[in-house]
Amino acid sequence: MGTADNETLSPAPSSPAPSFSQRREWSQDQAISYLMAQGIENPDCLSLAAGFVDFETLPVELSRKAYAELLDDPQTARKYLQYGTTAGSDRLRDQLIKHLAKLEETTVEELGIDRNQLVLTTGSQQLLAILADVLFDPGDICLVAAPTYFVFLGVLAGVGAEVITVEGDEGGIKVDALEAQLEQLKQEGILSRVKMLYLVSYYENPTGVSVDADRRQPIVDLVTKYSTDHQIVLLEDAAYRELRYDGPKLPSLWSCDPTHSQVVLAQTFSKSFAPGFRTGFGVLPKSLVQPVIDRKGNEDFGSSHFNQNLIATVLERGWYEDHVFEVCENYQKKRDAMLAALAEEFSDLQQEVSWFVPHGGLYVWLSVPEKLETGFNSELFAYATNVEKVMYVPGQLCYPHAERKNQMRLSFGVLNPDGIRLGIARLANSIRHSLK
Amino acid sequence: MGTADNETLSPAPSSPAPSFSQRREWSQDQAISYLMAQGIENPDCLSLAAGFVDFETLPVELSRKAYAELLDDPQTARKYLQYGTTAGSDRLRDQLIKHLAKLEETTVEELGIDRNQLVLTTGSQQLLAILADVLFDPGDICLVAAPTYFVFLGVLAGVGAEVITVEGDEGGIKVDALEAQLEQLKQEGILSRVKMLYLVSYYENPTGVSVDADRRQPIVDLVTKYSTDHQIVLLEDAAYRELRYDGPKLPSLWSCDPTHSQVVLAQTFSKSFAPGFRTGFGVLPKSLVQPVIDRKGNEDFGSSHFNQNLIATVLERGWYEDHVFEVCENYQKKRDAMLAALAEEFSDLQQEVSWFVPHGGLYVWLSVPEKLETGFNSELFAYATNVEKVMYVPGQLCYPHAERKNQMRLSFGVLNPDGIRLGIARLANSIRHSLK
Repeated sequence: MGTADNETLSPAPSSPAPSFSQRREWSQDQAISYLMAQGIENPDCLSLAAGFVDFETLPVELSRKAYAELLDDPQTARKYLQYGTTAGSDRLRDQLIKHLAKLEETTVEELGIDRNQLVLTTGSQQLLAILADVLFDPGDICLVAAPTYFVFLGVLAGVGAEVITVEGDEGGIKVDALEAQLEQLKQEGILSRVKMLYLVSYYENPTGVSVDADRRQPIVDLVTKYSTDHQIVLLEDAAYRELRYDGPKLPSLWSCDPTHSQVVLAQTFSKSFAPGFRTGFGVLPKSLVQPVIDRKGNEDFGSSHFNQNLIATVLERGWYEDHVFEVCENYQKKRDAMLAALAEEFSDLQQEVSWFVPHGGLYVWLSVPEKLETGFNSELFAYATNVEKVMYVPGQLCYPHAERKNQMRLSFGVLNPDGIRLGIARLANSIRHSLK
Repeated sequence: MGTADNETLSPAPSSPAPSFSQRREWSQDQAISYLMAQGIENPDCLSLAAGFVDFETLPVELSRKAYAELLDDPQTARKYLQYGTTAGSDRLRDQLIKHLAKLEETTVEELGIDRNQLVLTTGSQQLLAILADVLFDPGDICLVAAPTYFVFLGVLAGVGAEVITVEGDEGGIKVDALEAQLEQLKQEGILSRVKMLYLVSYYENPTGVSVDADRRQPIVDLVTKYSTDHQIVLLEDAAYRELRYDGPKLPSLWSCDPTHSQVVLAQTFSKSFAPGFRTGFGVLPKSLVQPVIDRKGNEDFGSSHFNQNLIATVLERGWYEDHVFEVCENYQKKRDAMLAALAEEFSDLQQEVSWFVPHGGLYVWLSVPEKLETGFNSELFAYATNVEKVMYVPGQLCYPHAERKNQMRLSFGVLNPDGIRLGIARLANSIRHSLK
């Protein structure tokens, strides 16, 4: 028995390769894979690239307390160790409604949603992937800000969707550019293929910018206006929403859709609590609930029920809010360190190098002169990783067709303030060297 | 801010519905949804239907010990609370290689695989869904035993695959029937569309039967033989493998493929430990590793890293083996109770009612006379749920086109022996009533 008995078997025929699906072809060569490979190949670099969260503020003590509570009573504990439903723990979904009401600065009653519109997923990423699955046929169109979250570009490529970018600035996607694009698609007669507008509304990955308060309602209205023969879904990726350090408190795009029939709100506990539990959620228009649950039923029929209940306990006991406050205090210091280091290190390059100031999240978006490419195969990237020992995310990954090549995403998530200062100094040296 | 200010907004236009993808259409009307709805609508029934695991043996104390260890040292704990990789924790994958060697009754060296061929998923279900995604284009063919695991039938429908069934008996799928089917497909010139043979090799869900020892090598050889222009992947779903109560110890199909280039082995800790952690895994031929990781990268870029480390600790400390031993002792009693109750309650219907004797797993497959339908809309189902208050899974769900309507899946997973005896008595009353 087992595999040991090789000599009694006929020689293994040389086996041909499997024949893969179109989807497999479409999901090759993802930016995230390159990036992770680069990280592995350059372990001696200071990483301004990794999208990991701050190591030191990960909630060891809170997790310990929550587990102790969850496992204290064996009868209750067993419920958490059992399968949950595909949509997820009722207990967490009920807590989330209260939590959302706080974030929206309203009451549970005014919020106007019920538990059944919430679906718990493996991070918010799984919700993004499922929505892509249930909405896009090959050739269908997704509108996105340029640049945008590169992992979602991979998801869209994976389902064969076409991506059309809309220009943005330090106030997020531009309303007039969005309107012009929608109007153009209408004139071209292909509005029927536009299934979704995807926006990272708070402290965007990769730019760090948020959609301005006064752009939010007009964006929702535009999407509604152009939802003529079918509804264009507005997917609001609010993964970084709770990592706010200063600047205005912004209403969600979701709150600008008072009937909650057009906007999907996706959030996660990966950034504000701990990614190791992989717990995210979506608030869905009623029309999308069953499609998402059916697809998730096929995919895994439910994310970790135990982890969902852990997050529920942390929310229920009020521990979460205090934790988020501490996390934000810590990130704010790191963001300040990065901004100060940028100002200092690039003081002689004010005409050449610019960046947006983020009021939250984990990222600073840096632009260098157009002639200076930042990609994996660029001289700058090679010099930065091989000589100066610092890594960043090439900005071109955040465009569907690498349209712009002179930008980069810098993360202050992982390094401490000293590491950030050193990393920025090394980066400045690299840029100065490549500009020569 | 927030959603409260409704009166200042223009009245919500009546929004059209989203336009869904083909995949969404294909993933509607899943058997699992019906089943769960029935369970919810009939809470007063004894459930011989639910696929849940035994409540009383869920590992509260072991989970407590494992958490204490995982969270004991804050520096290590934070690693577990951070993101892992898409493929999953190295620590768990290394433990799994040792664990597999034990299951295959061989050494780690003889096993001949490395960590990179293992991918950790959200239950084994996610691996099944990902493989369907990377292999099937619409119209491609999957061969399955008839009946088979109904959730996978939903997955196949969801990607537009065509399902062709191969006859089985108490020894699992029949080798001659499989060969005849493959030969027929070859003659018809559509072998190029056959991407996969899917088999639940141990104590199958739904029939409880295992593929006979002497059929295993011939099945692998057949798949190899017909892998001419491309490789037909043999997906071995071994979810119930470790729930063995008696009968022979069977080699995996995977072990009959000595180069490990043709068979995917899918296993899970949901049945043998706790479904609440949603941790499963696959051992993949090298050609499938990157396709699966790329797709999982899009889907969630990794299942819960913390839960993976919990399972690693439980394996590492040797707690798992003892636990599985206890779980099996408990299920064996419940299986015996169900078999004894069937023999007793149906002693007067020996010509009409028959079942397979399972040597492991959670299920008994019952056949009634052909004239007696068992489906959700049948008189028998209505009488059983409404009058006798007992629920089962209609067997027709386990065929792609409800080909046979006179069977049912009975689970001894959830009820205790007394509940099982009572449930079978009620079922016998229902069948007797419907046979009149």
